[in-house]
Amino acid sequence: MRPKVVTLADGGGGKAAAELVAKMFLPHLSNKYLSALSDGAVLPQINGRLAFSTDSFVVDPIFFPGGDIGSLAVHGTVNDLAVSGATPMYLSVGYILEEGFPLDDLAKIADSMGRAAKECGVSIVAGDTKVVARGGADKIFINTSGIGLVPDGVDISAERVGEGDAIILSGHIGDHGMAILSQRKGLKFDSPVKSDSSPLHGLTAVMLKAEPDIRMMRDPTRGGLAASLTEIARASGKGIVVEEDAIPVNENVRAFCELLGMDVLHIANEGKLVAFVPSHSAEKLLRVMKTHPMGRDAAIIGSVGGAQAGTVEMKTSFLGRRIVEALVGDQLPRIC
Amino acid sequence: MRPKVVTLADGGGGKAAAELVAKMFLPHLSNKYLSALSDGAVLPQINGRLAFSTDSFVVDPIFFPGGDIGSLAVHGTVNDLAVSGATPMYLSVGYILEEGFPLDDLAKIADSMGRAAKECGVSIVAGDTKVVARGGADKIFINTSGIGLVPDGVDISAERVGEGDAIILSGHIGDHGMAILSQRKGLKFDSPVKSDSSPLHGLTAVMLKAEPDIRMMRDPTRGGLAASLTEIARASGKGIVVEEDAIPVNENVRAFCELLGMDVLHIANEGKLVAFVPSHSAEKLLRVMKTHPMGRDAAIIGSVGGAQAGTVEMKTSFLGRRIVEALVGDQLPRIC
Repeated sequence: MRPKVVTLADGGGGKAAAELVAKMFLPHLSNKYLSALSDGAVLPQINGRLAFSTDSFVVDPIFFPGGDIGSLAVHGTVNDLAVSGATPMYLSVGYILEEGFPLDDLAKIADSMGRAAKECGVSIVAGDTKVVARGGADKIFINTSGIGLVPDGVDISAERVGEGDAIILSGHIGDHGMAILSQRKGLKFDSPVKSDSSPLHGLTAVMLKAEPDIRMMRDPTRGGLAASLTEIARASGKGIVVEEDAIPVNENVRAFCELLGMDVLHIANEGKLVAFVPSHSAEKLLRVMKTHPMGRDAAIIGSVGGAQAGTVEMKTSFLGRRIVEALVGDQLPRIC
Repeated sequence: MRPKVVTLADGGGGKAAAELVAKMFLPHLSNKYLSALSDGAVLPQINGRLAFSTDSFVVDPIFFPGGDIGSLAVHGTVNDLAVSGATPMYLSVGYILEEGFPLDDLAKIADSMGRAAKECGVSIVAGDTKVVARGGADKIFINTSGIGLVPDGVDISAERVGEGDAIILSGHIGDHGMAILSQRKGLKFDSPVKSDSSPLHGLTAVMLKAEPDIRMMRDPTRGGLAASLTEIARASGKGIVVEEDAIPVNENVRAFCELLGMDVLHIANEGKLVAFVPSHSAEKLLRVMKTHPMGRDAAIIGSVGGAQAGTVEMKTSFLGRRIVEALVGDQLPRIC
């Protein structure tokens, strides 16, 4: 009988590897491109500008409140494509498995990826599996890369951010990082924090339909909102001012941050975006976003101008101002 | 002063990560798409059928005679695209680094990737770096995914393999696996075996120009020529017969295999391809291949038909016949 864990043979390119793919992955991820099991998937005719993105996922723990490494790996790349202005179409998946990894867990993850891909309207068309000996990797790492099509007229770029642009955040921040941290530390709450891991392509589609001239979007994952805003300030050479009171934060996340002395601006998110939009479209976009489930709690959190070029300032709840900076590292390693 | 090794902060999405990318990767991999450091690279207008492929590289040792994990990661995905009939265009790269990995080694690998990409005429347009704590991964793992454009009229597919097709191998087999094995075991030879890691896109281009109707191609990596042939036999439902004496093998690789009791058909290659072509074009294609540096030692090694459907038989040097089978696993873990 086949062992109930991943073996080195499963990564060898022989019969065991073929069986692993056929039994574990194809039932969850099947489509005609992946099922062909060729070296490269050949996709139908495409005409337009492509967006191309890659992300490796090493999150620990691999199962957490609100998701797992599989759904996260799909959402992460779908979201990178979405905030590039693209309609996500095709994903590839590369597994690096540790010898001894339970096949039941692998099946759960493959199932979760298949469901997430279906929800996002993307096909997983190319795959690869490697196995390393016990101790050579920690359980499972997943790379997803993705292709999307950018509609004509859409041009998302930090260079297009201009004075007066409004800054919209799609919802409350800090949920993913706090969910991982609470799981990792074994912390219990009356109302547990769930990861916000979810796809943003539907939200970006309605936003770009309402206003194709959106300048810039980013999903604030590792490094949190602070990292995204400071990167955009630096890349655009513009000053950014945001208002602390305008930034949506769930009450339990806020309490958790205070308890642990963490700044919610630095906590990772996996289902939120920040958009820089022409000021005259800001109210219209906000209304449109609030009609979408992923943008219900959207808020205008600031604007471009009024701070030193290349920097981010925050008007605090106490009527002061402070500089927002990216951390040197992350408060939490292996958050995604 | 910055430590001379990778730290956890380098994977945190903050300042350290930005500096790592700016100092270590951009100098070697720079192009306008990657330099934008956006969530997804937006590429110029494209019209046609795309090939899309992914591969993770966990090779151990990371530096070996004839290459390193960086050049291998570029060649591997370029070759998967090439044998799909595509002209490789864009690559993504995802690094998973172990805390403490020497920055000097990372610089060597990034440089090697940059040079390989240039040689292959591809741009590395999207990237991601994750760092895991010491012991959570073994040194460095690299995922590359790639996009290529398939010329009109080209249709590479195991389903198109038909009775009478000729089978051409582009050169001698077993070099990559033997190079890794000799490095790993510290074996010394008078004439050391070097990996054949190299790009096949130039060879496939001249082949497809000479005969666009090539049925199927594959690069026999993990599992060797035996795995590629048995997979194509199974996928096409055809019987395959190859001749042992016709298969090019370097003398030192052959001696090494005999010494260790290994079958060269199962040894990995990283710069070879096997092609199934219409019989009437076989001689012409062989001539064309021999004019290309990557096909100098090309040979017709067999044909389709004359064996049970879905199986591979080999006419041995001793005028016998034997069934060629894929191994359950690989003789050598972490070969690529």
